[in-house]
Amino acid sequence: MNQSEIHIPSHDMIPEPVLRRLPWYLAYVDRLHHKGIVYVSSTQISRDLNVDSSQIAKDLSFLNIKGKTRIGYEVDTLCHVLQDFLGFKRRHNAVVLGVGSLGGALIQDSGLANFGLNILAGFDVNPGLIGTTVCGVPIFDSASLEEQCRKLRIDVGILTLPVDSAQQGADALAKAGVKAIWNFTPVRIRPEGDIVITNTSIYAHLAVMYNRMESHKK
Amino acid sequence: MNQSEIHIPSHDMIPEPVLRRLPWYLAYVDRLHHKGIVYVSSTQISRDLNVDSSQIAKDLSFLNIKGKTRIGYEVDTLCHVLQDFLGFKRRHNAVVLGVGSLGGALIQDSGLANFGLNILAGFDVNPGLIGTTVCGVPIFDSASLEEQCRKLRIDVGILTLPVDSAQQGADALAKAGVKAIWNFTPVRIRPEGDIVITNTSIYAHLAVMYNRMESHKK
Repeated sequence: MNQSEIHIPSHDMIPEPVLRRLPWYLAYVDRLHHKGIVYVSSTQISRDLNVDSSQIAKDLSFLNIKGKTRIGYEVDTLCHVLQDFLGFKRRHNAVVLGVGSLGGALIQDSGLANFGLNILAGFDVNPGLIGTTVCGVPIFDSASLEEQCRKLRIDVGILTLPVDSAQQGADALAKAGVKAIWNFTPVRIRPEGDIVITNTSIYAHLAVMYNRMESHKK
Repeated sequence: MNQSEIHIPSHDMIPEPVLRRLPWYLAYVDRLHHKGIVYVSSTQISRDLNVDSSQIAKDLSFLNIKGKTRIGYEVDTLCHVLQDFLGFKRRHNAVVLGVGSLGGALIQDSGLANFGLNILAGFDVNPGLIGTTVCGVPIFDSASLEEQCRKLRIDVGILTLPVDSAQQGADALAKAGVKAIWNFTPVRIRPEGDIVITNTSIYAHLAVMYNRMESHKK
């Protein structure tokens, strides 16, 4: 890889739709890389991913990556810069607050570690869970959240509590010093202080899917 | 509940941002309902959910629900219509294709059943998994996908395969007659025929979160 071609990208606020497309490109060029392919054109990416080629060029310009005329992008460089830019190579310490079915499932999803998320502990109020481990991850009493988060240097709090205690849980995570809350509840969390909130309501996606299925019936 | 106030909503293509907000309202009014609250105004919803009140009125108009002047919306009716409209009360039979860490986690997330998704089987090529069960859900050989999907009357295929086999898996699900694919891979699936594709790339949300965390550091 030609190091001189890599510019360190800035972490200004990139529009969310762009940030959501970048992992597609990464998954795609990662596959090309494993196939031993050295260059890829935006026309090729466009055809394979079904994204407009001018859109691809615009998206990648946020990373200061430009393709070469007639040759395209260097696959190796693209892989490296995308991974680095997306933060998937950096380690982000995380805890799960609410070890119900979804919280437990996320602890068990070892795939998250490949994307830079290291879940170090879970928290619950259920005495039957406190003191146990899930896939090697210890489950503590929610009362010890702040103490443990400070000790484990936690950056990310994953919120998988029931709806009724979601805001209270978010407040507790903010107090425990996390920088970001990954909110899986359908509750709109009101941020406390300077904290990042990312909403992933997988059940809301189900609503979208069901609606589209009904429309298709017609 | 005054049945005469409930109009059957049409299932035309509702804009996706609206469909994603509706489950927030449902989670919210469900809580009010359990607290015994009978009416709620859009001003109140707006304050509690941090969504513009004119936006709320517009969103709910897709469901043919209108609030009464000075009184607001009937909580009970709102709950009922939202749940019905979102399809969470109807049963949608589903299979998981790819029983790795994420696929296995989704099978174990019993919360999905509360939102109308019933996972009846998993499929994998790993001989160590075939013939076993995960939380009572049988895991079959991927080769039997079409046969099983037809037998079990499957509507939804959940795609949690590795990137390299994602498109091939989507094609197999389409051939097996599913009406929708819930795609958890970062691969842009090209639809085969008249099939609904819903993308939930939870790792892409991580990219958004990491980027926002970096921006906040400044």
